[in-house]
Amino acid sequence: MRNTAILSIVCPDRKGLVAAIANFLLAHNANILHADQHQDREANLFLMRVEWDLEGFDLGLHRFDETFGPIAAAHQMQWRLALSSVKPRLAIFVSKYDHCLADLLYRHHAGELYCEIPLIISNHPDTHWLAEAYKIPFQHIAVSKDNKPEAEAKQRALLDAHGIDFVVLARYMQVLSADFIAHYPQRIINIHHSFLPAFHGAKPYQRAFARGVKLIGATSHYVTEVLDDGPIIDQAVTRVSHRDDLDDLVQKGADLEKVVLSRAVKWHIDNRILVYGNKTVVFD
Amino acid sequence: MRNTAILSIVCPDRKGLVAAIANFLLAHNANILHADQHQDREANLFLMRVEWDLEGFDLGLHRFDETFGPIAAAHQMQWRLALSSVKPRLAIFVSKYDHCLADLLYRHHAGELYCEIPLIISNHPDTHWLAEAYKIPFQHIAVSKDNKPEAEAKQRALLDAHGIDFVVLARYMQVLSADFIAHYPQRIINIHHSFLPAFHGAKPYQRAFARGVKLIGATSHYVTEVLDDGPIIDQAVTRVSHRDDLDDLVQKGADLEKVVLSRAVKWHIDNRILVYGNKTVVFD
Amino acid sequence: MRNTAILSIVCPDRKGLVAAIANFLLAHNANILHADQHQDREANLFLMRVEWDLEGFDLGLHRFDETFGPIAAAHQMQWRLALSSVKPRLAIFVSKYDHCLADLLYRHHAGELYCEIPLIISNHPDTHWLAEAYKIPFQHIAVSKDNKPEAEAKQRALLDAHGIDFVVLARYMQVLSADFIAHYPQRIINIHHSFLPAFHGAKPYQRAFARGVKLIGATSHYVTEVLDDGPIIDQAVTRVSHRDDLDDLVQKGADLEKVVLSRAVKWHIDNRILVYGNKTVVFD
Amino acid sequence: MRNTAILSIVCPDRKGLVAAIANFLLAHNANILHADQHQDREANLFLMRVEWDLEGFDLGLHRFDETFGPIAAAHQMQWRLALSSVKPRLAIFVSKYDHCLADLLYRHHAGELYCEIPLIISNHPDTHWLAEAYKIPFQHIAVSKDNKPEAEAKQRALLDAHGIDFVVLARYMQVLSADFIAHYPQRIINIHHSFLPAFHGAKPYQRAFARGVKLIGATSHYVTEVLDDGPIIDQAVTRVSHRDDLDDLVQKGADLEKVVLSRAVKWHIDNRILVYGNKTVVFD
Repeated sequence: MRNTAILSIVCPDRKGLVAAIANFLLAHNANILHADQHQDREANLFLMRVEWDLEGFDLGLHRFDETFGPIAAAHQMQWRLALSSVKPRLAIFVSKYDHCLADLLYRHHAGELYCEIPLIISNHPDTHWLAEAYKIPFQHIAVSKDNKPEAEAKQRALLDAHGIDFVVLARYMQVLSADFIAHYPQRIINIHHSFLPAFHGAKPYQRAFARGVKLIGATSHYVTEVLDDGPIIDQAVTRVSHRDDLDDLVQKGADLEKVVLSRAVKWHIDNRILVYGNKTVVFD
Repeated sequence: MRNTAILSIVCPDRKGLVAAIANFLLAHNANILHADQHQDREANLFLMRVEWDLEGFDLGLHRFDETFGPIAAAHQMQWRLALSSVKPRLAIFVSKYDHCLADLLYRHHAGELYCEIPLIISNHPDTHWLAEAYKIPFQHIAVSKDNKPEAEAKQRALLDAHGIDFVVLARYMQVLSADFIAHYPQRIINIHHSFLPAFHGAKPYQRAFARGVKLIGATSHYVTEVLDDGPIIDQAVTRVSHRDDLDDLVQKGADLEKVVLSRAVKWHIDNRILVYGNKTVVFD
Repeated sequence: MRNTAILSIVCPDRKGLVAAIANFLLAHNANILHADQHQDREANLFLMRVEWDLEGFDLGLHRFDETFGPIAAAHQMQWRLALSSVKPRLAIFVSKYDHCLADLLYRHHAGELYCEIPLIISNHPDTHWLAEAYKIPFQHIAVSKDNKPEAEAKQRALLDAHGIDFVVLARYMQVLSADFIAHYPQRIINIHHSFLPAFHGAKPYQRAFARGVKLIGATSHYVTEVLDDGPIIDQAVTRVSHRDDLDDLVQKGADLEKVVLSRAVKWHIDNRILVYGNKTVVFD
Repeated sequence: MRNTAILSIVCPDRKGLVAAIANFLLAHNANILHADQHQDREANLFLMRVEWDLEGFDLGLHRFDETFGPIAAAHQMQWRLALSSVKPRLAIFVSKYDHCLADLLYRHHAGELYCEIPLIISNHPDTHWLAEAYKIPFQHIAVSKDNKPEAEAKQRALLDAHGIDFVVLARYMQVLSADFIAHYPQRIINIHHSFLPAFHGAKPYQRAFARGVKLIGATSHYVTEVLDDGPIIDQAVTRVSHRDDLDDLVQKGADLEKVVLSRAVKWHIDNRILVYGNKTVVFD
């Protein structure tokens, strides 16, 4: 298991940024393992992810803030420090379609997703058996038109109680309220079963089939107030033909959804995604 | 060079269709080389493409209509007979972007597209040199807001004069009138530089870039009265990332456009595309 | 659930084959749902898969052999009749890597693979829990250099006892004996973790990494006596870069393996694969 | 047109490298536009590409060597400085297959390849017309078993006379001598029409067809003494099926070859490829 620190930075682009960061890290004897940066010319932004070995790093992490803070302030950096040894805590929301849930649970079990999953919340009891097989606590919270605020209050209480860091909507077929979303900025990942922006909203496979497309897709994105409009994290497509009926589209699409969602979750856990405006940089 | 006949059929699905066609061909000693069929359950349609060697076929083609006609009528078949020895005549419309034109001309030269290209029409003189390199007649017809009907009249006169069978819009940046389109049903192929239905209309690369998509695409389709809404023939996508700026999208997209358009043209020439409703079957 | 019959045919190509089959089916009032055919010019072979509704088919299946037999004999057809209502019985062999097993079990559970799985055989006990979660009988048969013949005897006894129709090697890390293989011609499907014929044999990811390839792949194929040399059913690749270390290759490859193996299993179950020489036709 | 400098560095990985380079650039007021780095754990190597605007850079390039040299020496850096304003000079070698040549010439014309092409050398006169269309000097040098040394001497004399920086073998069907290759280390790019290491050597499409693969590929690589064994730059594949005969493979493959070769050429021109051992890092 790696014992590393990951520093993510977004700030206005200007001269001397790389030198400032590199000198700070060198001054504390950091052994840099990975560094990625990007400059968005249009937005005049500098984005960086740098990961170093904590072995030999001579700055106590409790003093990181006070030491790096002034450097960050001088360059107007928004920054975040993460430790690879600290597993983020994930809650999965699911309805009846269970392919993404099964996929995430298997990957977690196999060590692909370095996180804790202390909680699965579903508006249906159907996937309880899967949660049990992987020994993950499962909570059934029914949602209807009438009880949505109460249901969300229960969900949020559970998220709080379990110290959840981020939420994955693994084909959760309910629309979350703006208020709920506002509490978890860039911390809710959704999978939409089309290549956005095509077929945003309901029944994308049906509409793709009706349109006669030759490719179907899936999109993982951060959830924002506007439905299916948040920053895109990953997309994939696969070929379909006249030989595929609607069921084939759904089945082929399920494989895309699994891959595209699990990649987003993995990148989020590994602190590889930086959001700016309505876009993402993925340092993969 | 092949000396074959290709029969394309669309009709209501019912028992006995394959037997009727197979018996007809066998009765005239046809050596079937390829046969493909599809049944659309939803629309209750049967679609077929069958190709046979004319060597040994004992029915004179001048008598095909009267011999096959009654069989077709009995099954309410829409049908079309094509001969692989007869090259269809293609006119290419182009504006200033010349990558699709250059690609089509090279493929034609290399023998990939078995057609005649007696005519290139452009609203700009810029691509004249390419037409010359490949020895294809080039006509410059300027188009403006004011002269569109006259320009289209000239274009149609040229298409008539050259006995054109089908038109390819190789990034032709003008919208054709409904009247023009109505004269060439399922005979105008367009390339749109996005994965439709996403980003239909103007400036798709700019909009894809602004939306932060992780895939860009291209779509070839038959032109109908509604812009970018005709039956899709082929689509392809390629991955993009934050490292790609708008120019990169345009350049990567150009490669998709070339492949997706040239495949559509090839399939059209080879009579592999059957249209029904707003969809296509491609017997590739 | 469909109640259909699927007839698969391979025979020398000659005139009248389609008519013979179509007339036979029409004579017994068959409603054809799908028909696919292929002619291999080089080998002069005709291959066909035809599926029809048994509702209304007026030939009792117990009399199919005697009725269709003479037609088949007249055209030297090798043929096979399958019923979509009869689930084939699959045994999965696995070692310690469990991603393909988990994937197959989930797909089976989700109804994607229309078969029975009465048996999992492993040379390690590690995957027992997965078998239990999906309620599939699990047999642990240790295999070593010394006991291979005995181990294979036990395996074959189990396959017999469970009436197994076909075997899937889901990353089973033992080489089966020629004798074992000979008992299940075209009935053992393997997944190899490279795009064959590149990196056949041991440690393909290591060798791919050492060679510096920019794509890694996976191949599903029928097992024949020559290692990794049987008829290829499906292949897929994914992009890798210098940013991917060996572990990344293994993890990205696992996703390919799952998709490529499960497609092969599905096609096999649906009688979509016809083998001729060392090649396959897949009527997908 | 950009007026930038690109510094490429390969050296043993150790602390302080990024700081050393960043401080050097900052000291001379460099505005960094792009920076990419990679650490190969296995080989303990650090690789970097950094590009900055020469506008405002206060170190005269004639003094770059003496100023940066000591820093480089202190860290055992192999380094190379390139200027985006200086177009490298490319010679294309071609035989009769002209699709890669046509593609490269078009892309060069369209501004995708920022280089000079003062020379095309062919062992056949067939592609002369293409060279003429794009106004590129064409030299026909016949090659036979008997005259190979003389032919290569002529070729090298032409490369010298035209101040050629790098050579692209655009389906040049002759094997170059070890001596020839030794004169242009990492400066000869070849396209091989298979996904290496599968089907290295002669007739890859025929062998792919005989093996019944479901994917065909193409590989661009630097040429080394061992045939088809040099560092891989890029690879791509496309799906084929039983419906594709050998000619289809050749035609589908040609599209791969064009894309894979032109990407390699573009990356080489843009100084995006770093070679270490038998691998490449592509900072795309």
